[in-house]
Amino acid sequence: MTAFYFLVFLSASAAAAATGSVFLPGKWYQSLKKPSWTPPKKAFPIVWTVLYVISAIAATRIALGENPAPGLALWSLQIALNTLWTPVFFGARRMATGMIVIAVLWFVLAITTVVFLQSDLLAGLLMLPYFAWIGLAAALNWRIWRDNRESA
Amino acid sequence: MTAFYFLVFLSASAAAAATGSVFLPGKWYQSLKKPSWTPPKKAFPIVWTVLYVISAIAATRIALGENPAPGLALWSLQIALNTLWTPVFFGARRMATGMIVIAVLWFVLAITTVVFLQSDLLAGLLMLPYFAWIGLAAALNWRIWRDNRESA
Repeated sequence: MTAFYFLVFLSASAAAAATGSVFLPGKWYQSLKKPSWTPPKKAFPIVWTVLYVISAIAATRIALGENPAPGLALWSLQIALNTLWTPVFFGARRMATGMIVIAVLWFVLAITTVVFLQSDLLAGLLMLPYFAWIGLAAALNWRIWRDNRESA
Repeated sequence: MTAFYFLVFLSASAAAAATGSVFLPGKWYQSLKKPSWTPPKKAFPIVWTVLYVISAIAATRIALGENPAPGLALWSLQIALNTLWTPVFFGARRMATGMIVIAVLWFVLAITTVVFLQSDLLAGLLMLPYFAWIGLAAALNWRIWRDNRESA
């Protein structure tokens, strides 16, 4: 079952990732004012690939463990919110709505990580880089929104 | 835990549903040739609300039952694919890519329904209207794509 779970969670992550190739950060995004601590453009696909793989591994460990339901329910919510964010921000260019989505995603990821940690230490630890990255992405969404109100 | 699961699955469905209010079928969609059996516009929000609620109930039953992990893993994949479809079709107006997404979603829903049926008859039956609707939506996507190649 390990391969089945990993494949299913990785496919869900691929659906989320697909939004990034459908809604590319184009001229609009490039023209926005961004803070100095914005990660280099090249970093995003690399970081996201790593995060999707490790969060699929984390979910697989939860699926194989005892009492998998609470963690997997939360994992399904975070992947839906993750899939929603890119189209809202880069597709519809709705920076304020994107801010709401990513704030809720960050909150849900915090709960998911705590629930994972309680039932499987390694699964919980594997969620931490993802949680940290969404924190950075949320801060970036906030600054870009605040500094580019006229481009909304 | 019933309320927790239902709330989490309904929230994931709400994330998927939110794509419909961000990417409204506007003039572009209205101008497309559509088959005679296209459901009336008013039907869509009503049908989707019902389907999201009953699929959240189905997932809640699976979460509370024995061996919830396979069903919940599949449920997370279908909700990510569902969240992806609307932005691809109505946002990016990529009818061919939308066709791939909805075909994969339909296939995943078939497996999800079978897995649900095996562990909880009612949960499986509750997925059937959703599965049927996505079949109709996939047929609609196919016809609209075929009949409007020049509008792609």
